[in-house]
Amino acid sequence: MTPRRQSGRAPVTSPASATVFTTVLTQGPVSRVEVARRTGLSSAAVTKAARPLIEAGYLTELDSEQTGIGRPVSPLEVRADREFFLGIKITDSELIGVVTDLRAQILVTRFHRLPSRKPDAVVSGVAEMAAELLALSPKYTKRTNSLGVTVAGDVDREAGHVRYSPFLHWQDVQLAEPIGEATGLETTVDNDVKAITVAERWFGDGIGAPSFALVTLGTGIGCGLVVNGAVVTGSHGVAGEIGHIPVAGDGPLCHCGATGCVEAIASTDAIVAQARTATGERGLTMAEIVTRARTGDQALQRVFARAGVAIGRGLAAMANLVGPERIIVSGEGLDAYDLFADELRETFATHAFGAAAQCELILRPLPFEEWARGAAAVAVQTLFIS
Amino acid sequence: MTPRRQSGRAPVTSPASATVFTTVLTQGPVSRVEVARRTGLSSAAVTKAARPLIEAGYLTELDSEQTGIGRPVSPLEVRADREFFLGIKITDSELIGVVTDLRAQILVTRFHRLPSRKPDAVVSGVAEMAAELLALSPKYTKRTNSLGVTVAGDVDREAGHVRYSPFLHWQDVQLAEPIGEATGLETTVDNDVKAITVAERWFGDGIGAPSFALVTLGTGIGCGLVVNGAVVTGSHGVAGEIGHIPVAGDGPLCHCGATGCVEAIASTDAIVAQARTATGERGLTMAEIVTRARTGDQALQRVFARAGVAIGRGLAAMANLVGPERIIVSGEGLDAYDLFADELRETFATHAFGAAAQCELILRPLPFEEWARGAAAVAVQTLFIS
Ligand SMILES: [Zn+2]
Ligand SMILES: [Zn+2]
Repeated sequence: MTPRRQSGRAPVTSPASATVFTTVLTQGPVSRVEVARRTGLSSAAVTKAARPLIEAGYLTELDSEQTGIGRPVSPLEVRADREFFLGIKITDSELIGVVTDLRAQILVTRFHRLPSRKPDAVVSGVAEMAAELLALSPKYTKRTNSLGVTVAGDVDREAGHVRYSPFLHWQDVQLAEPIGEATGLETTVDNDVKAITVAERWFGDGIGAPSFALVTLGTGIGCGLVVNGAVVTGSHGVAGEIGHIPVAGDGPLCHCGATGCVEAIASTDAIVAQARTATGERGLTMAEIVTRARTGDQALQRVFARAGVAIGRGLAAMANLVGPERIIVSGEGLDAYDLFADELRETFATHAFGAAAQCELILRPLPFEEWARGAAAVAVQTLFIS
Repeated sequence: MTPRRQSGRAPVTSPASATVFTTVLTQGPVSRVEVARRTGLSSAAVTKAARPLIEAGYLTELDSEQTGIGRPVSPLEVRADREFFLGIKITDSELIGVVTDLRAQILVTRFHRLPSRKPDAVVSGVAEMAAELLALSPKYTKRTNSLGVTVAGDVDREAGHVRYSPFLHWQDVQLAEPIGEATGLETTVDNDVKAITVAERWFGDGIGAPSFALVTLGTGIGCGLVVNGAVVTGSHGVAGEIGHIPVAGDGPLCHCGATGCVEAIASTDAIVAQARTATGERGLTMAEIVTRARTGDQALQRVFARAGVAIGRGLAAMANLVGPERIIVSGEGLDAYDLFADELRETFATHAFGAAAQCELILRPLPFEEWARGAAAVAVQTLFIS
């Protein structure tokens, strides 16, 4: 099947057109005058850029509101159902897939078990899931062009290729091309944490923040970082590795080979390992550990408290270095939020330097489908990056 | 005296003009075609922007070089002596002042003792030093419009006002306005470390690096950070506080109130304190400590080694979070470079995550006048920020 790239895509034909579209998409409804003010474009340039987007059905004019003075104002708004997007997150055991609208709002969600982690099998699994999602509605079939796929690890988005993914045991796997061929969709592959950072920046708690960080707690501890309005990618391809900040001296050994990393103390694996050591029960599961800590097991409570301290130190290191406006802490690890939030906040407050303590900490769970929503947000982004 | 703002200033009249000027200033000599290529401006726009700068004597055309093919190329070059700049750094005990040219090259340096740390006395001292520097040559008197003043601490550059400077015991001191009035010069006040970061970015090891960090070791441990091509200022005014990254658990208490900060182990004050504790000699000076460590005192060598480890961990935290292309480590603390460089580099290599270890570490001393050069670089910047 040949990719349907460009067929019926949004007419984003110039930098001004991309700027106007993204402004209305992320901040609309908003008047042309206000778009001009926020972007620094002239009113004429805004009107010119908006016209083809209105004609193609991506933007619409809301009914005029007669303001007190001057001409009536017709705010521009996105027609969110003009195009649909698929987002699929590959975990080590399953695929999570969603269909979203232009604003990355989830319309449907599906979970598939992953029969094998072999790249070929994963490509087939993704293609099957994409076909199933598209078949749910004729609208989706007709008006979907783009698929975002995300995976934990080191991903070269430009090349569509996974350099290294420890959880999948992958090294140098080309993913965008075979998936694009198997699905006929314009396919973008990205790191899973960077992708949900995109979703937060455009459609979530990152809107309007020139700098913010999204930290995910789970098997790994990841972080997407936006500074000066752009995602930080790192000159050597590494950035946001808050999990490997050394916060505990010669503390526990990390899988990365160093000691004292945040991840060696606060990842779910590390918490399970410490809980098993503390109790001497080698079969303890995370669910049991959480339950027993909640019902009063002090040794297990201390394990979570230590994790909260380690994370709090890592967050303070980030606040002191780059001073984000806010930090969102999320991920499956947040399910046990109540067991470490106090220590996390206290430690952060102690180590944040001066006004860095004003950095807002938002702790909230991350439902699994949010990972797939991040993948869809990356697909939405491809409208503006050609 | 009324400020001479704008009198005879460089005609930087548009964003294109600022872009062309800074490109030639930091990367020249460079042909118009090459300026166009590097900036994304059209050749016509480059020529149009360059003309008034040539007429005002800021840019000059070098003799044509006949290239193999096509028209002769006349590279553009800055006339570095078209305008001079004063830079004055205020330390807790003295003023360091320089006159520089447009490229922030130091032409003369002066040191004055500071009779008092009271803001009024400091303003008078700065005005005296500025007058002395200008009087050194009629050229300086005639062709100097701008003064940069720097100080350690939390500075609001826009407002020209020092929010907090622990070394001077200042809180909320308006500095730019009284100094501007006393000197008649356009005066900019900035944080000292940010200022030398500007100097490195435009005229030093930061040229061409989209991201880099400059870390200064001394009484304090500071850091200027450039990410995505812009200095990171922090949403709450705090950034680059690598000295207060918690790297040593419940380790030594820091003056900031937290424990385990890099600065609590590796600042010159911390090194002196640890050396005195290790030897039981309460009168030990830094110079004596360095000499004795160099001549074999193992207890003192361990103090420096610990400092190297703490700094190495802080640098790794930065590399893992923001992935700068290179990190320059400098400051008066570098005088004892040989006593901690090995531990610093080894620790960095251990804790840098994956490709972050490719970040280049440049360790080099920072002569005192470089601080004043940073202040002058901030004054040069005002040509482009109106
Ligand atoms: Zn690690
Ligand atoms: Zn501290």
